[in-house]
Parts: sequence; C-alpha cells; structure tokens
Amino acid sequence: MSSSDIFIGETTGTALLILLGGGVCAAVTLKRSKAQGAGWLSITFGWGFAVLTGAYVAGGVSGAHLNPAVTIGLAIEGGTKWSDVPLYLVSELLGAMIGAVLVWLAYLGQFQAHLTDPEIVGAQPAEEGLVDQKSAPAAGPVLGVFSTGPEIRHVVQNLLTEIIGTFVLLIAILTQGLNNNGDGLGPLGALITSLVVVGIGLSLGGPTGYAINPVRDLGPRIVHALLPLPNKGGSDWSYSWIPVVGPLIGGALAAGLYNVAFA
Amino acid sequence: MSSSDIFIGETTGTALLILLGGGVCAAVTLKRSKAQGAGWLSITFGWGFAVLTGAYVAGGVSGAHLNPAVTIGLAIEGGTKWSDVPLYLVSELLGAMIGAVLVWLAYLGQFQAHLTDPEIVGAQPAEEGLVDQKSAPAAGPVLGVFSTGPEIRHVVQNLLTEIIGTFVLLIAILTQGLNNNGDGLGPLGALITSLVVVGIGLSLGGPTGYAINPVRDLGPRIVHALLPLPNKGGSDWSYSWIPVVGPLIGGALAAGLYNVAFA
Amino acid sequence: MSSSDIFIGETTGTALLILLGGGVCAAVTLKRSKAQGAGWLSITFGWGFAVLTGAYVAGGVSGAHLNPAVTIGLAIEGGTKWSDVPLYLVSELLGAMIGAVLVWLAYLGQFQAHLTDPEIVGAQPAEEGLVDQKSAPAAGPVLGVFSTGPEIRHVVQNLLTEIIGTFVLLIAILTQGLNNNGDGLGPLGALITSLVVVGIGLSLGGPTGYAINPVRDLGPRIVHALLPLPNKGGSDWSYSWIPVVGPLIGGALAAGLYNVAFA
Amino acid sequence: MSSSDIFIGETTGTALLILLGGGVCAAVTLKRSKAQGAGWLSITFGWGFAVLTGAYVAGGVSGAHLNPAVTIGLAIEGGTKWSDVPLYLVSELLGAMIGAVLVWLAYLGQFQAHLTDPEIVGAQPAEEGLVDQKSAPAAGPVLGVFSTGPEIRHVVQNLLTEIIGTFVLLIAILTQGLNNNGDGLGPLGALITSLVVVGIGLSLGGPTGYAINPVRDLGPRIVHALLPLPNKGGSDWSYSWIPVVGPLIGGALAAGLYNVAFA
Repeated sequence: MSSSDIFIGETTGTALLILLGGGVCAAVTLKRSKAQGAGWLSITFGWGFAVLTGAYVAGGVSGAHLNPAVTIGLAIEGGTKWSDVPLYLVSELLGAMIGAVLVWLAYLGQFQAHLTDPEIVGAQPAEEGLVDQKSAPAAGPVLGVFSTGPEIRHVVQNLLTEIIGTFVLLIAILTQGLNNNGDGLGPLGALITSLVVVGIGLSLGGPTGYAINPVRDLGPRIVHALLPLPNKGGSDWSYSWIPVVGPLIGGALAAGLYNVAFA
Repeated sequence: MSSSDIFIGETTGTALLILLGGGVCAAVTLKRSKAQGAGWLSITFGWGFAVLTGAYVAGGVSGAHLNPAVTIGLAIEGGTKWSDVPLYLVSELLGAMIGAVLVWLAYLGQFQAHLTDPEIVGAQPAEEGLVDQKSAPAAGPVLGVFSTGPEIRHVVQNLLTEIIGTFVLLIAILTQGLNNNGDGLGPLGALITSLVVVGIGLSLGGPTGYAINPVRDLGPRIVHALLPLPNKGGSDWSYSWIPVVGPLIGGALAAGLYNVAFA
Repeated sequence: MSSSDIFIGETTGTALLILLGGGVCAAVTLKRSKAQGAGWLSITFGWGFAVLTGAYVAGGVSGAHLNPAVTIGLAIEGGTKWSDVPLYLVSELLGAMIGAVLVWLAYLGQFQAHLTDPEIVGAQPAEEGLVDQKSAPAAGPVLGVFSTGPEIRHVVQNLLTEIIGTFVLLIAILTQGLNNNGDGLGPLGALITSLVVVGIGLSLGGPTGYAINPVRDLGPRIVHALLPLPNKGGSDWSYSWIPVVGPLIGGALAAGLYNVAFA
Repeated sequence: MSSSDIFIGETTGTALLILLGGGVCAAVTLKRSKAQGAGWLSITFGWGFAVLTGAYVAGGVSGAHLNPAVTIGLAIEGGTKWSDVPLYLVSELLGAMIGAVLVWLAYLGQFQAHLTDPEIVGAQPAEEGLVDQKSAPAAGPVLGVFSTGPEIRHVVQNLLTEIIGTFVLLIAILTQGLNNNGDGLGPLGALITSLVVVGIGLSLGGPTGYAINPVRDLGPRIVHALLPLPNKGGSDWSYSWIPVVGPLIGGALAAGLYNVAFA
C-alpha cells in the first residue's frame, strides 16, 4: 500500500465517517431539522451506516482503518507496519476535521436557528472549568453534534466504558479473517463491521455516547473550538482525553488477546 | 448494453424506486394510513429499501443508475458512454413519473381522506409565489409525498446540502469496484448502496429531505402538478431547480475526485 | 425437486413465515406483551425477518415460494412446473394454518388477557355483514393478529393496493437471477428479498396492511374462525377474497411483464 | 477442532453476546443512560447484533454455538461430537457470566444512579417466594438487565413460548448448510442468523422476553445473585428453570424434525 493510498483512503473515509456520524447527531438534535427527535435507534443506525460508507469507500484503497485504535491494534497484531502508523493517524485526524466542517456546512441554517433560539441559549453547557464534575450535563446539544460526553462524569467508569466498547470493535475486526478465508475488509466484512458498530452503540453507548475512536472525538472537538458559532459554549476539554486514551487501551487489549489466544 | 435494456431497466427500476420511496412518505404522513406517524427512521429505511428494490431489479439489465446524478457521474468517470446518457435520463424521468402515479393509485383513498379533511385543507401551503422565502414551511403534507422541500428556505445552504449528500452517494458507487474485484453493481453492492442511502437520509436529510437525485424530485413534482387532486396546493416550482442542480453538481464533483485521486 | 421436498419445505417455511409474521402482530398489539406499542417499523421488520427465516429454511429444500402468488408467478415465467403447482398451494395453505396456531400457543396468555379486558371487549369489530363498508374499522385488534384488513374499505382501491404490492415482490423475485449469475434463491437472495418485503410493508402497507400473499391472509383467517377464543368477533369474510385475488393478479402481471420485457 | 479452540471461541463469543445483549437492556432501562426509553425495536436489534458480534468472532474458532440449545441440537443432528458437549456447555456458561460482569462494569454509574433512586427502590420486585404467581411483574428493572422474566407467570405457556422460539432458531441454524453449498457458519450465515434472532425477538419476545438460550438467562442470573448491588431485589430463582429447560426442549425438537424430514 503506497503512502498516497493511505492518505487518500484514510482522509476520505474518515471524513465520510464523521460527516455522516456527526450529521445524524445534527439531524436528530438541532432545531428546524426534519429528523429532530428521531431517537437513539436513528443515531446508532446513522453511525453504523457512516462506518459502512467510510469503510466501503476506503476499503479497497487503504484498508479503511478510519480510527487510530484500529491502526494501533492492527500494528500490534502485525497486519499494519509500524512505519505506516504515523501517516494513518495524521490522515485520520485530518479526515475527521474535514468531516466535522462538512456537517457544519450541511446544517448551516439549523446551527444558526438552534444557537439563536432563546431557550437553547439559556441552556448552554457551563464553560470548561466551571463544570461540576459530578452532576453537570456532559455537553450541550451543539457540542454533542461534534464530540461525545458522559451522562455521569466519572473518570474511571467513563474510561472503562470506552475501553470495553473499543475492545469489542477491535476483536471483531481482528478475527474477521479467521472465518472469511483470510480475506481482508471486503464489502461483506464492511457491512458486518458496521452492524457490529450499531450493536456497540445500542448496547454500550448509554454511559458515554461511544466514541470508540480517538479522532471521532478529537477531530470534531477541535473544529468545534475553531468554528465561529455564536453561543456555542465551551468545548469541554477536561473530558477530551478520555475518548482518546480509552479507545487506544481497548484496542491494544484486544490485539493482545488476539495474539495470545486467537492467532 | 442495448438501448432496449437501458430503457426497460431504468424505467422499471426508477418507477419502483419512486413507488416505494413516495409510498413511504404517503404511508407515514397521510390520514387513514396504518403507518401514519411511523417516523423518520421508517422514512429513511423505506427510501433505502426502495433503492434496493429498484437496484436489484434493474442491476442485471441496465446497471441500475435510477438517477441522473449517477448517470452523469459514471459518464465523467468513464463507465457509461456519453452517447447512452440521453436515453438514461429520459428513461429515469419517465420511470419517476410512473412511480409517482402508482403511489397515487395505491393511496387513492388516503389522498382523498387527507385532502378533504377540514384541518388539512386549512393548513395547505401557500400558493407558489406567495411563499415567504424565509419562514414558510417548505411543502405541505401532500406535496411532501411527491417532492422534497427545505425546512429553512435558503438557496446557498439548500444547494450545499444536496451537493454534499449526492457527493457521498456517488463516491460510494464509484469506489465499489475497488474492493469488489471490479464487479459492477451485484446484489451485495445493491444492498450496501441501499444502506448508504439510509445513512445519507439519516445524517444529511434533516435540512432538505435529501433528493440527491434530480428525477426523484422533478418527476413526482410534475405528476403533482398534473394530478386532479382537490386542495393540493402549489407545486413549489420556485424550489424545484435546487434538487436538480445540487445533485448534478455533487455527482460531478465526486466523479472528478474519483478520477483524480482514486482511479 | 421431489414431492416430499416441496411438501416439507413449503409447509415448514410458510409455517415459520406466519408464526413470526402473526407473532409480531400479536407482540405489538396484545395486552400484557412486552412489545405492546412497539410500532409500525417493528411490524414491518418483523414480517421481513419472518420472510427471511422461512426463505432461509426452505430455500435449499423447495425453493421457498411460501406464497401462491410466487408459485403462480414462477409457473407463468416457466421456472416452476404447472404440475407441481397444486402441491405447492396445498402445502403453503397448510403451513400458514400451522403457523397461525403456533402464534396462538405462543401468546396464549396474552390472547386471554386481551380478550377478557373490558375495554377491548367493548371495542370488538362488528359482525360480518353488519360492517358499514365505508367507515368501520377494518378489523379489531385480535383479527388483526391473524388477517389483514383495510383502513378504508373500498374494493377497487384495496384490490389495487394489493396488486401493486405483490407486483413489486414478484418482479424483484423474478429478476434476481439476472444479476446473480443465474443462481436461485441463495442466502443472499433470501436476505435481499426479505428487505424488499420490509420496503413493501413500509411503503405500501398503509392502506390494507399488505397481505401480498393469499395464504398469509386466508390460512390465519380460517384458524381465527375455528379457534375457541372468547369475544373474538367476526372473521370479516366479506373482505377475505381481496387479499387472495389481488396478490394473484399482481403476481401474474409481474410474470407477464418479466416474460415480455426482461427474459 | 481442538479443546482450546472450543474454550476460547465459546467463552469469548458468549461473553460478547451477553455483554452486548445485557448491555442493550441496561442502555434502554437504566436511569442516566443516553438510550433510556429507546424501545423494543432497539432491544431486539441490540440482541441481534450481539449475536452477530459473538458469532462473527467465534465462527472461525469454535463454530460459534454460544448457546447450549445449539450445542445439544447440533449433537443430536450429528454435526457436533457428544464428547465435546461438556466443554461447550462449560465455556458458554463461563462466557455468559463474564459478559454479565462486563455489563455491570460498563454501566457502573447507571446501576448506582438507578438503584439509589427513591422511585426505583420502592418498585423493586418482591422477594422470591413472596411473588404472586399470577399478577406480579416478572422482574424489576435491574434483574431485567440480567435475566428474562414473563409478563404473565404461567408455567405451561412460558415453557411453550421458549420452546417455540428456540425451535425457530435451531431449524434456521440446522438448515443453513442446505442452501449454502454445505458451508458452516460463514460471515453471511452469521449475519442472517443474527437477523433471524431479531425476528424471533420481535415476534416471539412479547410473553417471556425470549431467552431461547439457557446460559443467556442462567449465567447473568448467577451474576445478579452474586454482585454487591444495593436494593437489587431477588433473583427470581423460581422462574429460572424455564429459560433453561424450554430452550433445550425446543432445540432437541428442531434437531429431531431436521433429522427426520430435512437431512
């Protein structure tokens, strides 16, 4: 796989992932969206088909990691060269940021309607640092279009939930060659992986909103901090390390288990 | 591919697409339908399986474009001959109109019950031309069975949303040969593409109702204008160019990116 | 295909279809069911996966018609011998009746709780013959577990809706060999067909509840008439011919179109 | 298949099944979960994709039984050696218990918030033995995250429902080789089986919550009894034999029918 394949595949694929993933959060939560209030099942299917789209487009180009936890996990497992890892990570973060900007463009009017609504303005999340770490809502509705936040703010549990969720994702990805005649991420693998992600969302998304991917959270959070949105509130940087560190630990644990028990 | 294959495949496939796609809008919105109020997730899955049905039926006959943005995109990419393009476009528009008429026939009683309901009659959208371009509802419930309309009427944003949505669709279609050993739109490709469309609907449908297909909007709008429905209101022609132009731009951009970066 | 294969496959497959299809109607509508009120999307996915289960089990045995409209359509098309048709039809009807009895057994307590509830007893549908053909509800909640009924009782429209819905089903089944290298109903074909049925339900189920299969309606209706359920109300025989005749016409039309245009 | 393959595959796969299956129950029912109130369709898709994840991961290792009813059914059918059965059963039970503990860890904060909520504490289910067998709710919300319970407590009917549901599951698994060129549980088989499980849940889950798997119910129930949860209520041991015995009977009946009629 050439460097240009990695760059093009991962940037495009991750941009699609975040465009559709952030998009469904915008669709379901922002005012003046036809999908407002469409519910949790819509959000989880939306993210799943976001994975499907990104994985299907990038699968034949870069292998469609779209996620540093996947890249690190596959490097530990041996399927990805460590020397390719930095390019994967940079491309994934860049793609995630592009995707978040595209969500903003696609929902320009809804963001404006939402953020200038008097009810919403009053309910903006507290500024970073002022947040009561125990009981404050993790993120207001607009930050929630970009990044994840926990329902209950508790470092150990939040980390644990992200570790467990990413472990499930990675073990599913790592074992897929075992019953597939050694094929990589073909179209059927992309489809099944995307439904596994729907499952992770439905089952393990309740506490933290399931980042299970460092750039899925960090990329859009950076964009949230940079975009000129009125009344957007803080970007909740105090929480931001958990959806980065948790998924990396979960992915590494899955790769370790795979190498010991399954390989 | 013979001219007759193109005509039969595209007309039949697009008619099925619009019959099932318009049908789910009728099912969810019209009075006296068992599915009334079934919600946004029903609408997006309904449109997705409409794509699946049309693509599955026409896939082996005409390649199942069903959409001028797909036809133009594939012509730019090189997979479709420019000389075949006019026949594709005509067949797609004809199929879309046939599909819209079939929706009317299948929901004959519901249309009548809905349009003669006193509450609904009073809530018909204003006639074309009198619509306040900023705050009026984009389309009343009956026009919504046929065509799309924006929640917030803003030319630049509406166009942008349709461009982005169609770009996602086309990049997914164009790259599918890359991880599928060069196969065209086989049954698994049709299935995955249809789930990508569910994803686009869930994630990018909020602002404009995701036409992402010129004939999906124009064909049924023409039928709406022609059908002898009482109290049907205007056909909102002032908006009608956006779901035609936006998707064509989005498809062309995707084909351009594909040719530069992926081919 | 031997006679015993046809009998075993069609009886088992159709019994599974009706067990799971009638089951989801019971689950969503009967009192004291955990799924009560789960909504239209649950019903349509429930019927779709009922088709998947029946088709997957019977596919390798009898070809999994499970539906006289499919059998007649395939006989017209030429894929099924006319001499096998009677055995297919008898097995399908027998299977449908077995399935309906199994629904009753699985929901024994819920049927009893529902039918002895004072509110429900008062709301039973009028006896056959006394029904006002224009405005009466098509079927009470218990008959609805067994058979379909229209929201608006209008012979021409109801027939039309069933014809159109079954036409879509059959054209999808008949063309599936065209893009599948001539394969019959393999597992992927069963999956796609089942999602097409979800689509038909979402999009065309609003007016009549989409029988699109003569035995799906007739078999359970006979069982409803025979079962010793208290307060069960009439079996609405005056409507019963429409979900038999409509699907047969729709299937025949699709086979005719297929033979003329696609074969 | 080596003993170590059976142990690793079944323990991991069943742990994933219960982690995601119990997880979706926690997500939808516990306080302070983002998915609270997401509904029955979310629960059934959650369990389906739990099956998909477990089956996909373990399919190439141990054949992915994940369920004593499957193991016994395949042993009767002849596909699994009786001498391997004990190891399968032990691994499945161990995996189910691990999965239940992981649900607790992932939802630690939600369990605490839920169990210390004054409203919930007052609504705990009665202690075992004190339960009115006719009208008491089968299980309180916290036991429901771990184990199943009937809406109407009636031994014969509850048993019947579990027998019928498991029969459907097993007949689908046993016949899958017939139309799949003799392949075992490949990725497509895992996908279809998981959607059959969604169908069983939607259609037959209403009365008892569809265990259809002895360890799915027994493993988490043991964990519920052992975990130091405040106000957790009884573990409803009086019901616990039904979701063990029912599925085993249903699986054996399906294997018997398969051997007589399909093999």
